Amino acid sequence: MYELRQDPTTQEWVIISTERAKKPQDCVRNPAGVKTPAYSSSCPFCRGNEAMTPPNTICYDNEKTRSWQVRAFADKFPALVLGGDTLRRVDDGFFLAMDNVGFHEIIVETPEHNIPLALLNGDHVGYVLDAWRQRYNALSQIAHVKSIIIFKNHGPAAGTSLKHSHSQLITTPVVPRHIRIRYEIAIRHYDDTGRCLYSDLIDHELSVGKRVITDTKKFLVFHPFASHHPFETWILPKMRQASFGQLQTPELMHLAYILQETLLKIHRGLHNPDYNLVVDSAPVREDNRDQYRWQLRIIPRLSEISGFEIGSGVYLNSALPEETAQFMRDLKV
Amino acid sequence: MYELRQDPTTQEWVIISTERAKKPQDCVRNPAGVKTPAYSSSCPFCRGNEAMTPPNTICYDNEKTRSWQVRAFADKFPALVLGGDTLRRVDDGFFLAMDNVGFHEIIVETPEHNIPLALLNGDHVGYVLDAWRQRYNALSQIAHVKSIIIFKNHGPAAGTSLKHSHSQLITTPVVPRHIRIRYEIAIRHYDDTGRCLYSDLIDHELSVGKRVITDTKKFLVFHPFASHHPFETWILPKMRQASFGQLQTPELMHLAYILQETLLKIHRGLHNPDYNLVVDSAPVREDNRDQYRWQLRIIPRLSEISGFEIGSGVYLNSALPEETAQFMRDLKV
Repeated sequence: MYELRQDPTTQEWVIISTERAKKPQDCVRNPAGVKTPAYSSSCPFCRGNEAMTPPNTICYDNEKTRSWQVRAFADKFPALVLGGDTLRRVDDGFFLAMDNVGFHEIIVETPEHNIPLALLNGDHVGYVLDAWRQRYNALSQIAHVKSIIIFKNHGPAAGTSLKHSHSQLITTPVVPRHIRIRYEIAIRHYDDTGRCLYSDLIDHELSVGKRVITDTKKFLVFHPFASHHPFETWILPKMRQASFGQLQTPELMHLAYILQETLLKIHRGLHNPDYNLVVDSAPVREDNRDQYRWQLRIIPRLSEISGFEIGSGVYLNSALPEETAQFMRDLKV
Repeated sequence: MYELRQDPTTQEWVIISTERAKKPQDCVRNPAGVKTPAYSSSCPFCRGNEAMTPPNTICYDNEKTRSWQVRAFADKFPALVLGGDTLRRVDDGFFLAMDNVGFHEIIVETPEHNIPLALLNGDHVGYVLDAWRQRYNALSQIAHVKSIIIFKNHGPAAGTSLKHSHSQLITTPVVPRHIRIRYEIAIRHYDDTGRCLYSDLIDHELSVGKRVITDTKKFLVFHPFASHHPFETWILPKMRQASFGQLQTPELMHLAYILQETLLKIHRGLHNPDYNLVVDSAPVREDNRDQYRWQLRIIPRLSEISGFEIGSGVYLNSALPEETAQFMRDLKV
């Protein structure tokens, strides 16, 4: 099958080309698991090594075991700095530049060195999501914070050398073009139709059904029509919420269970692949509930992007989302 | 150093954050070379195995050795198909899709299994560039071809499992958004200033000098101000040429020597890293010479992109282009 498909949220075309592929089960990249110990003395994220990190901004304790479960703190080697200002300057009479003012925080998801997020229980994942939301809401109060990206890198192909399960949050002092374009497309759809693009997307995915993995009262888990990557998985809220910070506690706990189940399916079905998880929200202070929707995306890193993607920005996906969604739907965990 | 820098050609911000880096020499990823034989019986690109591929569209012979030097042919498992049409259709009442009509061609750069492009001589590289140009010009005559991407994947981190040195060419039946945005930015600059953005860029890089690697009468090799990746290298023509197909033969031979030298510096300085090479041109039939310029980019794949880049579209570069350019400039090959 050869098809160009347009992502309705970004209006980018994706090539679905299944002739060189790859059944869902052939996308597996890490068939053999490596044994990792429960504690590493050199790991700053392990229980007992808390002095190796900056002080906590958030900590969830377990009353029974008297140990923390999830904690957050500023990154020791941040990609951005506190201080500086948001004035743009012209470098060398031509180039636009500015201070990289912002926050970079780490959320350690478990005190155990060797437990991936997919194998924690739903309540525990709830602490992680609550830490994301709390830090999102605290940082979105700050004037120079224009967008907040929550993300997770699992495994070396996903860009991390750290084995200990953790996620990150970075704020940017400008709205990234990528997010601005997606936002503008949603606004235009709203102006044209009076409806939220993401709400329409959910309705259409549900009416078609074949790319749906899990459908609950509050969330839809599916493989999008124009998936950039094999097994790319989206979780969209059915509530009118433009930013992750707008999530209410009962919804957050519900999401924790759905996310854990989704990650477990990926863990089992694809044999613990490296993956990225990303939560994108509307630009800060532009989070109109009627027009936009936050998105949680999981991207298993099963293949490398090539020069074609770099040159064209068009992704070449060798798996059919309808087939991969069915594979995931049929998987019992 | 923490700085946000805007790429003037795409208006995307890039984070330059050198605190977690990495001197130029520490970016090396493949310190140990693996010995590859000069011939592999299973490799369809090796001399003697020509029957394993579709027929040649181009072939450059060596009169003396009576062997071919460079040859091109259609990909056996193309990402696109000949036939079909360019009508857009609405799938499931909501999603835009179309046939993926186009061409996907392979250029085998040498009959030897184990010689990378960087170690071929300048004349030989000239055959490769001539094949690119000939196929560019032939395919750009076809009505449904809207953009042509020439690219090369070197090594597994760059997205290829094939060791035998080769490049590729893919046509798309739509102008990718990525290329459209870059094109529109250049047109707006032209409308505002009466000058070509890329000509201005070359002038400013030359006047500053610190990111320049090689400057000749016809080409500029440099590390751009807002490099997305460590050691990202651009080659821009000084001639008014919007597409690679507009390159004249003496310029093409000149480029062959400059490209070979640049690749050799990367090969030696970074110990044969995996890399992608991309040639982007203006959209086909929109190649106004005054407004746009083709670009050749080399991206060593020294680190993985993470969830932050996926979520924000903002690249986090841990190396300073001024430092990496000096490292390359000082390297004698």
